[in-house]
Amino acid sequence: MVQNKRWVYKKVPDGVPKAGEDFAVEAEDFNIDQEAPEGGLIVKVLWVSLDPYLRGSMRPENTKSYRPALKAGQVIQNSTVSEVLQSNTSKAKKGDLVLVYTDAAEYSVVQRPFVDTYTFYVVPKDRDDKIKLSYYVGVLGMPGRTAWTGMYEIGRPKKGETVWISAAGGPVGSIAGQIAKHEGLKVIGSVGGEEKLKYITKDLEFDAGFNYKHEKPADAIKRLAPDGIDIYFDNVGGEHLAAAFDAANTGARFIECGQVSEYSTPIEKRYPLRNLFQIVSKRLRIQGFIIADPGFGDKYFKEHIETLGKWIADGSFKGREYIIDGIDGISQGFLDMLAGKNEGKAVVRVAKE
Amino acid sequence: MVQNKRWVYKKVPDGVPKAGEDFAVEAEDFNIDQEAPEGGLIVKVLWVSLDPYLRGSMRPENTKSYRPALKAGQVIQNSTVSEVLQSNTSKAKKGDLVLVYTDAAEYSVVQRPFVDTYTFYVVPKDRDDKIKLSYYVGVLGMPGRTAWTGMYEIGRPKKGETVWISAAGGPVGSIAGQIAKHEGLKVIGSVGGEEKLKYITKDLEFDAGFNYKHEKPADAIKRLAPDGIDIYFDNVGGEHLAAAFDAANTGARFIECGQVSEYSTPIEKRYPLRNLFQIVSKRLRIQGFIIADPGFGDKYFKEHIETLGKWIADGSFKGREYIIDGIDGISQGFLDMLAGKNEGKAVVRVAKE
Repeated sequence: MVQNKRWVYKKVPDGVPKAGEDFAVEAEDFNIDQEAPEGGLIVKVLWVSLDPYLRGSMRPENTKSYRPALKAGQVIQNSTVSEVLQSNTSKAKKGDLVLVYTDAAEYSVVQRPFVDTYTFYVVPKDRDDKIKLSYYVGVLGMPGRTAWTGMYEIGRPKKGETVWISAAGGPVGSIAGQIAKHEGLKVIGSVGGEEKLKYITKDLEFDAGFNYKHEKPADAIKRLAPDGIDIYFDNVGGEHLAAAFDAANTGARFIECGQVSEYSTPIEKRYPLRNLFQIVSKRLRIQGFIIADPGFGDKYFKEHIETLGKWIADGSFKGREYIIDGIDGISQGFLDMLAGKNEGKAVVRVAKE
Repeated sequence: MVQNKRWVYKKVPDGVPKAGEDFAVEAEDFNIDQEAPEGGLIVKVLWVSLDPYLRGSMRPENTKSYRPALKAGQVIQNSTVSEVLQSNTSKAKKGDLVLVYTDAAEYSVVQRPFVDTYTFYVVPKDRDDKIKLSYYVGVLGMPGRTAWTGMYEIGRPKKGETVWISAAGGPVGSIAGQIAKHEGLKVIGSVGGEEKLKYITKDLEFDAGFNYKHEKPADAIKRLAPDGIDIYFDNVGGEHLAAAFDAANTGARFIECGQVSEYSTPIEKRYPLRNLFQIVSKRLRIQGFIIADPGFGDKYFKEHIETLGKWIADGSFKGREYIIDGIDGISQGFLDMLAGKNEGKAVVRVAKE
């Protein structure tokens, strides 16, 4: 028996969640020598991903959404990189490092469906040194797959085109922009802070960027893309989206990945859009998606993880992480991420590799 | 030599166009025995189509749009059904009845490009009696192709789904709704008058309809489609489109064919939409199109004209026409159509068949 610290959901937060009250780390005993379930695994968790969508699961159970609501007392689950301790499946063996959706905990029993899903992945032993293990829940994980799938399935980038990416300093936006650079597009990123602006224009070498807190999106995009945009990768919605309709060229594609400006604003206070007639006159194609939808993430899983892995290995692609050290800090780390204090993808180092 | 009355464009209308001032019928001599140009035809026009898009061509030449602006003194052109008098192409012979884009006039010289385009079509001599010749500029012409292409290329209807069609009493909407009925969908139409409401629910047997002048679109669609809509065929935009976002089911498709409520309204008075976040949460696919775009009208030209022809022949599809008798009435007929006085597709009978 070992001690197993687990991140447990307590109740629906009233506004901004509170650590210890709405969720907390709790310990229980765990038998690491137990037999794995049929088709499943016993794992030791090394890295846990922290993602904004988890906040959406913390809601009353009768409020419909695309993922089920968490139940009080449940261990919160998310993407992890874990080490296999016991295996009862041919898909992974003892000692393998795997990308698996399971408990945000030190140890976990992985049931068969979580091994059989397409997101289960055995990390190659001969991977390049530059590919950090934690990248498998970041640039090579769900946020990366979101950027990749949105860009290729909906955006269909062509060399020489111009793309605007909003929330370009975030985990998804920063990956989408780098993909577009690889495809030979002119990349313009918008962010909400000077540090992020420097990050996308200096570190990631986007062609241009602006801070929407200092300049209206409509003005900035006119200034930076005088010939219009061909793709808009939307993480923000509202005023940004309205500006994109105005700036769009004929036949432009809108990748509707998120509209974060809208979710927590009462409907009557949301930015009013009056220029949707441009959808017809410019023949725009606008598509919303959620990476877990069938036909999306599964379609590009292998291509994304392999191609982007090569780009990381040859130094042409950069990840950035905000590491929370130890599972004891997971609640506060989650709150910091929700408050936007993370510069880079938020990951929890649960155990040393 | 014969007299050839032609519909001539005079100048950019200032507001509502005026017959005789902005366009007028003018006669000139025409040699009907002249040789046709290389690859072209000499034709006698029988039917001319009148379509709202023509108004959009009557604008200053420096205002960009998807079709070129008309030039002062130019004969207005549009889809016609014409009889071939002289032929210098293998594609049609003397005596053939053809669907051709040419002068709105009694006679016309047809240059090669207008014969070589995919919209040139020789009417089969053995067509069913129910297929009126004028249908080739209506249900079997551009408006029909618009409805067909929008529905199949973007809407992708599935049996049992629910579709909402706005401006459902118009040439495009009434065809789109009948196609959806053929595919086994529940069809809801919205219109702006009681006569049109009766037409779509009684004559065309749509499952339900409402008059937006008597009931708010949001209320009506909730009442008539309590389980939501899977396709929205948009001809109106604005408040209708906002209601469609609210009523949409996950994965719904929006066929953005027109937003007629918006074009002539100053931007600050247009209906403000605040619910575009549903594009992401419901994974909507929204696409604007213009039938003349490559990959649209050409893709379905044959399928549309043949399949819909069969439906007309077997009595399962209805056309409705607003016939202007004689080219002398074309200017007033055009104004009446713009004012919405036509119940049915506006066509001008230039000569007896």
